[in-house]
Formats: sequence, C-alpha cells, structure tokens
Amino acid sequence: MNAPVKTEDAFHQLIHENHMWGLWEIASQMTPHPRPQAIPYQWKWSLLEKVVRQSATAVPVGDERRAMQLFNPGLNGQWATTNTLIAAVQVLLPGEIARAHRHTPSAIRFIMQGNGAYTAVEGEKVLMHEGDFVLTANWQWHDHGNETNETVVWMDGLDVPLTKALDCIFFEMHKELKAEHAKPVNGSKALYGHANLAPTWVKERPRFSPLMIYSFDQTMEALHALRDRDGSPYEGIALEYTHPQTGGPVMPTMSCRIQLLRRGEKLKARRVTGSSVFHVVQGQGRTLIDGNAFDWGKGDIIALPSWALHAHENTGSGDAILFSISDRPVIETLGFYREATS
Amino acid sequence: MNAPVKTEDAFHQLIHENHMWGLWEIASQMTPHPRPQAIPYQWKWSLLEKVVRQSATAVPVGDERRAMQLFNPGLNGQWATTNTLIAAVQVLLPGEIARAHRHTPSAIRFIMQGNGAYTAVEGEKVLMHEGDFVLTANWQWHDHGNETNETVVWMDGLDVPLTKALDCIFFEMHKELKAEHAKPVNGSKALYGHANLAPTWVKERPRFSPLMIYSFDQTMEALHALRDRDGSPYEGIALEYTHPQTGGPVMPTMSCRIQLLRRGEKLKARRVTGSSVFHVVQGQGRTLIDGNAFDWGKGDIIALPSWALHAHENTGSGDAILFSISDRPVIETLGFYREATS
Amino acid sequence: MNAPVKTEDAFHQLIHENHMWGLWEIASQMTPHPRPQAIPYQWKWSLLEKVVRQSATAVPVGDERRAMQLFNPGLNGQWATTNTLIAAVQVLLPGEIARAHRHTPSAIRFIMQGNGAYTAVEGEKVLMHEGDFVLTANWQWHDHGNETNETVVWMDGLDVPLTKALDCIFFEMHKELKAEHAKPVNGSKALYGHANLAPTWVKERPRFSPLMIYSFDQTMEALHALRDRDGSPYEGIALEYTHPQTGGPVMPTMSCRIQLLRRGEKLKARRVTGSSVFHVVQGQGRTLIDGNAFDWGKGDIIALPSWALHAHENTGSGDAILFSISDRPVIETLGFYREATS
Amino acid sequence: MNAPVKTEDAFHQLIHENHMWGLWEIASQMTPHPRPQAIPYQWKWSLLEKVVRQSATAVPVGDERRAMQLFNPGLNGQWATTNTLIAAVQVLLPGEIARAHRHTPSAIRFIMQGNGAYTAVEGEKVLMHEGDFVLTANWQWHDHGNETNETVVWMDGLDVPLTKALDCIFFEMHKELKAEHAKPVNGSKALYGHANLAPTWVKERPRFSPLMIYSFDQTMEALHALRDRDGSPYEGIALEYTHPQTGGPVMPTMSCRIQLLRRGEKLKARRVTGSSVFHVVQGQGRTLIDGNAFDWGKGDIIALPSWALHAHENTGSGDAILFSISDRPVIETLGFYREATS
Repeated sequence: MNAPVKTEDAFHQLIHENHMWGLWEIASQMTPHPRPQAIPYQWKWSLLEKVVRQSATAVPVGDERRAMQLFNPGLNGQWATTNTLIAAVQVLLPGEIARAHRHTPSAIRFIMQGNGAYTAVEGEKVLMHEGDFVLTANWQWHDHGNETNETVVWMDGLDVPLTKALDCIFFEMHKELKAEHAKPVNGSKALYGHANLAPTWVKERPRFSPLMIYSFDQTMEALHALRDRDGSPYEGIALEYTHPQTGGPVMPTMSCRIQLLRRGEKLKARRVTGSSVFHVVQGQGRTLIDGNAFDWGKGDIIALPSWALHAHENTGSGDAILFSISDRPVIETLGFYREATS
Repeated sequence: MNAPVKTEDAFHQLIHENHMWGLWEIASQMTPHPRPQAIPYQWKWSLLEKVVRQSATAVPVGDERRAMQLFNPGLNGQWATTNTLIAAVQVLLPGEIARAHRHTPSAIRFIMQGNGAYTAVEGEKVLMHEGDFVLTANWQWHDHGNETNETVVWMDGLDVPLTKALDCIFFEMHKELKAEHAKPVNGSKALYGHANLAPTWVKERPRFSPLMIYSFDQTMEALHALRDRDGSPYEGIALEYTHPQTGGPVMPTMSCRIQLLRRGEKLKARRVTGSSVFHVVQGQGRTLIDGNAFDWGKGDIIALPSWALHAHENTGSGDAILFSISDRPVIETLGFYREATS
Repeated sequence: MNAPVKTEDAFHQLIHENHMWGLWEIASQMTPHPRPQAIPYQWKWSLLEKVVRQSATAVPVGDERRAMQLFNPGLNGQWATTNTLIAAVQVLLPGEIARAHRHTPSAIRFIMQGNGAYTAVEGEKVLMHEGDFVLTANWQWHDHGNETNETVVWMDGLDVPLTKALDCIFFEMHKELKAEHAKPVNGSKALYGHANLAPTWVKERPRFSPLMIYSFDQTMEALHALRDRDGSPYEGIALEYTHPQTGGPVMPTMSCRIQLLRRGEKLKARRVTGSSVFHVVQGQGRTLIDGNAFDWGKGDIIALPSWALHAHENTGSGDAILFSISDRPVIETLGFYREATS
Repeated sequence: MNAPVKTEDAFHQLIHENHMWGLWEIASQMTPHPRPQAIPYQWKWSLLEKVVRQSATAVPVGDERRAMQLFNPGLNGQWATTNTLIAAVQVLLPGEIARAHRHTPSAIRFIMQGNGAYTAVEGEKVLMHEGDFVLTANWQWHDHGNETNETVVWMDGLDVPLTKALDCIFFEMHKELKAEHAKPVNGSKALYGHANLAPTWVKERPRFSPLMIYSFDQTMEALHALRDRDGSPYEGIALEYTHPQTGGPVMPTMSCRIQLLRRGEKLKARRVTGSSVFHVVQGQGRTLIDGNAFDWGKGDIIALPSWALHAHENTGSGDAILFSISDRPVIETLGFYREATS
C-alpha cells in the first residue's frame, strides 16, 4: 500500500511532514467489504509434478528444505499464498535429511506421494504415508528424513504471513543435523489417536494439539461413515481435524479440514471472512470463484482469498476429496467471522 | 444423621425450640478429613449371576426395568451405592421392552452379557455389544429393547444420590411404550466416533456428550496401543471416555474410565476425594481398601467411598481390565479435589 | 430416608440380604419434580435479637465461635438450613478473638450489626462494617477479632451440607490463636475492589474470588444507579456479587446476591432448582412461598427450598433490600438448572 | 516487501514464471527474532496542539471525522501507527456532529481535552470527560456530537491494520446523520460500571465489553489505592481495563491500560511480542527504546513496535500517568506471546 497523494495546502503540508494524514484523505481504505489483494489462483499438478521432478537435481537439500513456495500473484512478491497462509510443495529424496530447526510459524504437512519418510517433532519420529496429516506447532524442534527408497512429496502449510504481520517471527537452527529422537515412534498417535479416550496420567494441556499425526485410513473411515448424510450445503461432508484435548482446531492459527464431494454433488456458493488453501486429494471437479471456473484434479492446489464467493462441484466419475487449511480460528476468535451466500 | 443431644439450660432450650443449635454443640461434625458413611463393599459375580438368573422369572419388566440396585450397607437404606452414585445390574430378556421415560439423573450402561439389544436415546437406536459403553444423559427420552434371542445384562450407573441431594429430581413417563426412533441407528457414532475429526456442519455444543455409544473394540485397541507405557503409578493404563467436542468428561456429573492392569502389575496406594464404582471387565485381582483385601474376578462390582486408601493389583495370569464410574467432575469443578498417598 | 419395606418372597429375600433392591420397589423415589425434605422457614429478628443478646453471657467464644446455626425443621436435625447451605448468626463481643482455623466448606459473612471488627483471611485483615459482604473460601486460614467497643453480629453462610454430601469435609485448627496477618489491611479491596480495572502484575487466577470484602457503600451505589430500570420481573433490581477475574460467581458453590424492591413493588412468582437463604437488610415485605405468606422485616432470615414457588413483595413505606445466598453455580454447572412460573 | 532477486537458471525461471519461489531463496525472511518495519516514534504535544488548532479551520467535519492519523514513518505510507494499530487525534468543535457509521475495526477513545461531548454507541449516548476511556466495538453504530461550548480533543485507537491484514474490513455509513439514541444516557455505566456486581437479568454475553465508558475518576481512585504496592518492575502500577463479564480484555483485539509511575520511579527494561501506542496523560518522563531516549510530557503519543527493548522512567516532580493500547490479546490468544529482559 502506498501513501496517498498529498494535498498541498499549508495545513496538509504540516501534517504530512510530521507523519500524519487526515482521515478524509484515506477513508476510502475503509471499504464496504473486504477487497483482498490476494487473488484466487490455481497451481496445477501437471506443473507441480514437473517442478517436483526437476527440483530433485536442480537444488540440494542443505540447511534449507527443497520446498517450492506458492506465491500469490496478487501479493507483490510477498512470501504468501493468501494474506495469512503460505503453502509449498516439498520434496525429499531417498537418504536425505532436512536439518533440524524451529520457528514460531506453525506448520502442517499433507503427504502427497511416497510412504515411510518421517518428520520428527520434539523428539517424536512420525512415519508418514500418503494422505496423512502431520503437525509441527509453534517453536517445536523438527527435522525430516527419508530412509526409504522412494521420493516423498508433501504439501506444507504455514501461518508465515500472519506471524510476520504480527511481528512475531522467531527462528533457530539446531546445532545438530537431527534433533534427538528420544520418544516412541508415532507415540502421540498411541496416546491421542484413538476415538474419545484420553490418557488420565497426562496433565499437560498445550495450546497446540499434542497429536502429531492423523492417519489417512482413519480419515477415510470417518468420511465414509458419513457419506449418506446431508452434510453442509456449502461444504458437503466436511470434517475438521481436532485437538484431542479440546475438540477445537488443531492450532490457534489454522483450521484444517477434509471434505468429501460425492459423485455429481454440486455445492452452494458462499463467501466467508478468512482465507484458505485447498489441495485436491482425489477426484475431479470445478470450483467457481467470484464467477471464474477453476477445473481441478488430483494434486492441484488452489488459493481462496477472504470473502470470495465460491462453490465446489464434483465433475468426475467418483468421489472427490479436498484437503484444506484456513485461518478460520483467528477470524473467529478475534470476532471477525461472517458469511454470506451472495 | 440425627440431631445432637440437647443441653438443657434456658439458653439452649430457647435456641433448640426455635430450630437453632450452637456451633459448639455440633462442631465435631467438621471432621479432620472425610468420614463417609458409605463403606467399601463388593458384589461378587457368583451372587449377581444367581440374581440375574432368578430375576428372569421372579419379576416382570413393566413400567419399571428389571434392575437390581446395589445399596451400600453403610447408607441406611438409601438408594445409593456411594454417596453420589447408584449402580445396578439390569436384565432384559428376548422380546422385552423397557418403557420409554426420561429423568434428570444421568445414566451410563456398560454391557456385561449379550449382544444386539438396543438403547434408544432421543430417537437414536444404539445397538449394544459386550464391553460397549452407552450414555443416557439428563432428561433424554430413552427406552431399551431386546430383539435378539439372548438375555442381555448390563451395569447401570446413575447420579441419583447426587441429584436427590441437590433436590433436582424430575421424572416423566413417555405416553408410548417406545419413543419414536427417527434418527439413523448408531448415528452419533458415525458423527463423533472417529478419532479427532469433527463434522463441521454440526453447531450444537451440548453439555453432555452427543456420542451415545463407545465401542469395546475401539476401547481395547486404545488400551493395547499404550500397553508398553508407564501409565499412572496409581491407575496403570487408565483412559477416560471423553466428550468429543470438549475432550472433557462425558457428563458434568460422572467420569467414566477403563483401566488396564498388566499381568503382575501392582499399583501404588492412593486416596482421592470423591467416590467410585468399579466393575471387573476381565481378569482377576485384588484391591486393598483401607487395609482390607477385596479379591475380584470378572463381573464383580465394588463400591469405593471418598478418601478410602486403595491399591489395585493384578493377581491373575493375563490382563485385568476395570471399568469405573466416579463423581470426579463434580469434585473438581467445585474445587474439592485432593489426593494423598497415605 | 429409610429402607423400603421388604417384600418377602425368596427372590426378594435373596437380594435384600445381599444389599440389593429392585428398581420396582423404590422407583417412586424418582419423583415427577423435586420434593425437598427442607421446608420454607423463617427466623424473625425479634427472636434472633434475643438469642444474640443472651448468647453473650450464655456461651463463651472458645475454640468454637459463638454462632447459632439455623436448622431447617424438615431436615431431621441435620446441620443444614437448606439441603446444601447452612446459615448462622454469629456474635463477637468487644475484645474477643475466634480462633484461627480452616476447612473445605466455604463461608461468606454479611455484617448485620457493628462496625470495625475484622476477619483475617490468609493473612489479610479485613475490617468489616454493616452491610459489608466478606468471603472465606475453601481451605483458607481465617480468624475473627473484635478490637472495637461494640458487639458485632453477622450472618454466616456456608456450603457445609453440600460438602458433607460430597464426603469432602476437611478441617484443621491453627496452632496459634491468630494466624499471622502479614498482608496489607483490606489489601484485596485495593487490588480488586475497583470497577473493571485489573492489576496486570497479578498472575494467580484462583477458582475462588481473590477479593475478600465487598463494601456496602459500593453495593448501595450500584443498586441505586439502577433503580429506574425494569430489572427482573421475578427478582427486581438484583445484582450478583462477582469474582473480579471472571465476572462469574464468587465461589463455585455459592452465588450471593443483593436485591432492591422498590416501594410498592410486587414481583412475579417463580420456582427454580436449587435452594437459597434470604436475609432482610432493610425494609418490610412479604414473600409467598408455595401459598404461605411470610411477612418479614429487617434482620429476618428465611430458608427457601428447591423448586418452591415464591414471590416477593415490598409492603413497607420505603425501599426493601434482600441479601441472599444460593447453590445456583452448582446447579447450573452440573446441568440441573430449571425455572418455571407456576 | 519486494520479491526477491531472481536466479536465472532454467529451473528457477520455470518456478518464478509460475509464481513459485524456492525456500532457499527467501529463508532469510525467517529472522531469528522479530524485525519490525515499524519504528519507535513520538508525536509531541507541541506539534499535536498546533495541528489540533489549525485543523479547526483547515478541514470541516463532513462525512469523515476531523481525525489526524499518526502514520509510522517505517511503514511506507500504510494507514498504521504500528503493524496492527492506528492512533489518531480527533477534534470536534462546539455544535459539530460526526456522522453515524459502523465498521469492523474496533475503536477506543481516550479524552484528552474538553468535557461533555458525547459518543453514541448502538443507541447509548455516552458523555465524555477528560481522562475517560470510551469503547466502540466491531460493527456498532456510532456517532459523536459536541453540544458544549468547548472544543473537544481525544485520541482514537483502532485495530485497522490488523483488520486489513486479515482482509476483514467492512464499513457502512448510516442513512441518518445521527443514529437513534434510544437507550439511557451512560446506561451501560449504570449496569456494569460498579465494582464486582452484575445485573442478574442481563443474559447477553458479548465478545466485546458491554460497558461503553470507564470514568477517569474511578481510574484515578484505583491507581491511587495501589500506589504503595510494588507493582510490576517493568510497568509499575499498571491496570488493565477489563470486560465486566469476563475479567479479560475489553476487546479480543486490543488491551488497554493505565499506568502510574511514581515520582523518581525508574522501571526495568523489557521487550515483548506485540506492539503498543502510549499516550501521556500526566507528568514527565523518559522512555529508552532500543537505546534511544524519548523524553515525554503531557499529551505526547509514542509508537512502540514489537520486540523493542523499552524502559520507562518518571523524570518529573510528580506522578506520571500513561495510557496505552496494544494488540496483546491477539498475541496471547494465538500463542505468540514472549518477553525478554535484554
């Protein structure tokens, strides 16, 4: 955003020189409804797949991961897929390790390809398979490693733009390549990954979900158990991944969801405050966003800005499944949530 | 509790006649620690089994269920297994229906024998199998039916004595034998019975768990996933059944738990404020309560009063599993929770 | 409550001998609505005043306070004014000290007569004047002293019957007559007694209000600021004393209220779950309880059982002010609150 | 923030053309600690006073208020005093009315000069005097009017930059100049402005404080009652204005505080995540911010960015009083709060 054009009488000259502007000069920024700079945008898997393949030889995994960041074309080169979220596609080749570090932005991973690589979070090694959803919360040490024979690809989602907007970025590189993996492998899944049963000897109640991995088989089972329900007219059979100790979002800054669109299902249009990034897990479909059609298939990633009118439709011959992240908990907690259907 | 013996000078005569007593006359009731009237007590399965068998012919299911209420011998004929809880053993024969009604005391069921009978709660028919844990919350219409060929036996647990102590009993008989069963069978399990995934289109947030049935197979899976952990030195691998939308207890008045004691496991002694009722799901063991040994086996039910020092031990050749209910949420919410190890 | 009369066939003999009763034998205890044993009852000030006067010479203040406990005539000599609450009238003569102790029942005081005596709570000496409302929460050391020249009389309110019903009574006598008074006099009033301003350096968030005294002048100011409002048709201008850090009740077990009935004001009848004790601070009136009229004046104390239909009326020539305590927070937290107007 | 310089091999060309950047190209934006673009900055009252005076004739009050917005010199012309907050100085002449409107950014006012003008919020006219603190929450209709004979000046504080960063700006102009003022004048003060007493007939529990005005006399009384306490070594006697129904911040997006520095008091240095704007209500002092001294006196306004090391000192001959707003509730709720003393 640039400074408004100056009005040049003596009074305005006085205030502008002293870093003041009249409300009357800038009030048009108080718009009737949100006018995001971010635009709706789609990265097709055909492109992402080529980038993934070439990246294997083009760039090494060093101190930084081999993670291709998706920059929203409307945001002038900011490190941002929407105003609050960054999504990326990360590639880890057999034998590689992504150096341990920690940062205040929180991260999620959704595994797109490959099975058996790990993310280690605060000492717990988590083995990841296709469709799994993995958490790395604010300021937790984490490293990734691929001890399998296949290339692993996942989508990262982080709240980097939000953390930057709040001037709260902290980052620290670990002194070792790998942090110590002292806890049981997939240990948080044993503790918290079972339906509606809580270990009574655990007293910690962290703000972020203590469950590091949500398995795809459990997710699919839950979706299919509800496939005969009406669900939401705007989201279909949409489930939110939850914090096992609160039933709320997995993190205070991001809501993560999985969504089933049944064959032929055409959802109604809605706009909400807050932005999202969608990833197509399975199937084919079309999303109308502010009047523009985005046809999608497996592997695509789509940015959805705040207050954009959007409607999803399954145009394929089977189920379609969408994974998404949004800043909904921020919007709701701060009292900004709204929705409208036109 | 009886009125204290009267002291007969004129002043005391004046106050006693006018329904006043001096603190100096009764202060001994303010004891250094809890001295429950309820006593530790055990109902053996050998007895319960005989009662269950005879009850089939001795009493009909009419407007009232065929439910044998376990009266604590210390409580002078009060309808109470502990000061706050009542447990019972209920029997439903093939073809029987227990008439629909509702009441403010909340109920849980733990299925002891038989598979396939139902409890219908607020229109949702829930099919029950051995080891399942079923809820009927405060003021929900419910009826039971046995459309199978086998006798079904379960343990009831209710907060009747607490509700009575609070003068909050309400009861209503349904005008029909069966309330209408309009919702999908086991429908709340489809909605809430999957690990850490919440249907986004549900907006209700009831104080009582909206999940009506917690399956034994899920429970066993969760226990076994943790069998290599230390667990609690006082409770072993103890899991609390939770409200899917809060992660807290299933009801504001009762906490319900399942507990694995591994072969040879001997837990440490502890006392806590609040009372419990234990049911032996599997295995053999011994519980020392205030110095007295209670040897138990499958099917037994044991009352544990507030502040009784107790220690469980697995004395059998395999796993032992205990189910229990307690008034812990009441005790904690009201600020009365304490524990001590001697 | 007594054991039901035994039915004598072999089956019933078997179960009764083994401390079981059939639901069909006792189900009448599940009443359509609460039927409290406690009755509505009034202690007139003319009586209380005589008792207060005579108590000065009839009983000493020793280890126990000179506190006349109001026993509900319906409760068979239980230490209880209602099912959950005990009220008492306490007298402290010039120069007397009531020995320091602590207990798990929580106490409130409402000063009826005399100015300047103190209650010391956890080291904070609180100077009490007529109309002040003073707290002594669960397990806080407290002693009372009268360093003035006038006799001091207050109403005590405690949750003793509730604490007993939950088997959670703990009591400890202090080794000294007076606990050390190390904190600033009325110090919590300086910290928390100002409207809607919180000291930022205090990090403790106790379950019980950290404010020990609520002054009558502030209370009257608040009542009068609202005297032109409609208020509640059932309670008039009724204010609840609140926990400064939560805005909720001062304690998890008691709600305390002050209520203004303007000249000629006649409130509508209502019944609620939960019991109360009323104290007349000022004025004259009449309360209809389940069809019986209780005419009251300054100093009277009235017990109101759960679910009793009651309606207050100001029959005097000026304002009437009622102070009351109830178990409302218990009833609401546990999901038992109901109200009805007939 | 500008796009990073492009690296030109074929792979990087491919990704840049398709709106992707390698993490390795931009990871330096993940800084070890926050590096705000906003700078510490001070607007002196000598300047503000001149601007206030000249504004009276230089600009009218039309649809937009006569409010001089304080633009942080580090933020490139953004409508922002810090990254999340905008402060302004607003002037209303005798007889003027600032047109009714509403918007999703929330506003506070702190009255700097003049007595008796009003802000009307959702139909409640609030009469404002020097030192009063006034709220206008998210989406509440409000208008200002000056029916007195003196010019009124206040500081506005809004969360405009945060609301914009979240793409949640909504704005609506009222069809009338003044919204209807149907509620009692200062009515919310009668309801909620008394210490620790809550009207029992009010059932609404809004996310934003329902109390519209916090009076300076009450604020001063509270500060002075604590002037003998240690307070915080970093903030002195610092009080937060609270939501009467929760004890928490007045709004989910802003914390507002009043702070007493006693004569000679020199506070310790600290940095916290989150930004603030300070206004000098009384006295003289000096604040060291990241090594630079800012000497201040009555009427000055100072912007304090996130993570800036700052220490306040009273350098005058009497009390100094600072009012401040910050984004602390956002920072804490989202899990980003940190502090350090060097």
